Amino acid sequence: MEATIDPAIPLAQDIARVIAVFDEELRSDLPFVNTLTAELGRRRGKLLRPKLLLTAGRATGTLREEHIILAAVVEMVHMATLVHDDVLDDAEVRRQNDTMNRLIGNEGAVLLGDYLISHSYHLCSRLESTEASRRIAAVTNTICEGELMQIENRGNFRLTEAQYLQIIERKTASLTSLCCELGAIVSGASNETCRHLAEYGLRVGMAFQIVDDLLDLTATQGETGKSVGRDAELGELTLPLIRFLGRSSPEQQTRLIDILSNGDPHKSEAVLDVIDKTDCIDQAMDVARSYLAEAIAHLAELPESGAKAALIAAAESGVHRRR
Amino acid sequence: MEATIDPAIPLAQDIARVIAVFDEELRSDLPFVNTLTAELGRRRGKLLRPKLLLTAGRATGTLREEHIILAAVVEMVHMATLVHDDVLDDAEVRRQNDTMNRLIGNEGAVLLGDYLISHSYHLCSRLESTEASRRIAAVTNTICEGELMQIENRGNFRLTEAQYLQIIERKTASLTSLCCELGAIVSGASNETCRHLAEYGLRVGMAFQIVDDLLDLTATQGETGKSVGRDAELGELTLPLIRFLGRSSPEQQTRLIDILSNGDPHKSEAVLDVIDKTDCIDQAMDVARSYLAEAIAHLAELPESGAKAALIAAAESGVHRRR
Repeated sequence: MEATIDPAIPLAQDIARVIAVFDEELRSDLPFVNTLTAELGRRRGKLLRPKLLLTAGRATGTLREEHIILAAVVEMVHMATLVHDDVLDDAEVRRQNDTMNRLIGNEGAVLLGDYLISHSYHLCSRLESTEASRRIAAVTNTICEGELMQIENRGNFRLTEAQYLQIIERKTASLTSLCCELGAIVSGASNETCRHLAEYGLRVGMAFQIVDDLLDLTATQGETGKSVGRDAELGELTLPLIRFLGRSSPEQQTRLIDILSNGDPHKSEAVLDVIDKTDCIDQAMDVARSYLAEAIAHLAELPESGAKAALIAAAESGVHRRR
Repeated sequence: MEATIDPAIPLAQDIARVIAVFDEELRSDLPFVNTLTAELGRRRGKLLRPKLLLTAGRATGTLREEHIILAAVVEMVHMATLVHDDVLDDAEVRRQNDTMNRLIGNEGAVLLGDYLISHSYHLCSRLESTEASRRIAAVTNTICEGELMQIENRGNFRLTEAQYLQIIERKTASLTSLCCELGAIVSGASNETCRHLAEYGLRVGMAFQIVDDLLDLTATQGETGKSVGRDAELGELTLPLIRFLGRSSPEQQTRLIDILSNGDPHKSEAVLDVIDKTDCIDQAMDVARSYLAEAIAHLAELPESGAKAALIAAAESGVHRRR
């Protein structure tokens, strides 16, 4: 999701500071470690999480150095999960580049993910208060649980919608929620405002992941810049397929499960062929839209500002993105 | 290494508290996550690192709740590195059990390692001061660098002794050093005493890893309780082989490198056959012994106590162990 930023807000300068803190934290006295982290720099994404944290900070107060550090921390956490995710998914392409596992092997990628997560905590422990450290570590606990739950349910074609939502809440929305909440906490916002920002971030994350999973099924690698069709290949059910299985005839269900269970790679086309005449993709998109509407509703009591407008725009852009 | 404990010190009670904190921290609301962590409980090792931390704490003052928490933290860090190490080494046996990667697959093991490391920071962030968090995160940065350096040098048959020592210092000795130092810090020891404990722990770790690498080459799986011969199989040079390559004829060097480079598994016997008539294993053992002597020398100024005797005994046991 491209977080649209109001031009009145010079977020670019803050983001440049975040990247400087990020790169400085990862610097090693071992040259080949720096070579690896430079490769990560070439794979920098849209920086959605730092942008959410900074924009939530601005929408509720004034940015401080602590916002910049925490924005670097959450991006490091996110990048660590991507590097390990690509190992788990055996993915080959990410952000129009070879994945790190493809570039340096699974072993290097496991260690590089460990290096990132370790540095994220190290950077976080520079802050005076231990609250951020506690919250960041709690959310990484939750992310791991979500990821474990996801691989536990590979090939489980009876996965319920509630279980699916629980997985994506833990693995994705918990972090976007914390980003927005921390932005507000560091700005000194009231508990009530912090809670609203957390709820906003949670729903943005839910919508983001639902759309991400839709794109994995329907988009091309050229459009998303990363390997697609992996969920179906790994037998991981996502929302449109759960809706399809819940509402189609036993024959149709069997047809889809047969495709998902067979060993063929690149099965997205066959899956799309089965669900073609149904509205299950539209239904999934509607669920994403309603999360985003709820997200925006949680911003109602914030005073009008460019930052608030940017948070609304970020949510709205979630359903229009192609990557 | 079995840390020999003076019977005058009721360490068993403290260790029981450490295990209770460890298990409580890992508890999840997801039953299958608890099933996984229960498997970890079945693979609990000798708890060397918690024992070092607690004994260093006792040798320099009185144990506090913070010692217990940090002892659980360092064991969690250590266990996370073991779980990921076994993925990297494709190891099958650890502590007389299937490794976690063998039990739940590489993907589950990567995530379980992540879950452990995340919880180690989470537990650590419960402490009031951020110093321990900073130090723990700094040491996990260092461990990752050591591990990255190790896999970077797989198949590098020109690895120098200095490089080898740097790898094991980072991946192993940095943590044992921090264990002993934190034990003393939390006991409120002087900077000088803390430094001596750190130096003691560093050298115990160096000796431990040298002996561990020797056992990987010379012992059986039955003796060590874990997969052996993995270093040679992965083309990772350890101290005896570095000594051998530095002092043997070009023909002998070629013979060893040919064995290390070929694709055959289970090559320890062939390696031992080549180095048979040399004293390079004894030389490596001598290096370990001199680290342990230096370690003990760093305890000289500690007042006599059962805990000090236990630290000395732990060091001395390092060269006699078979697992």
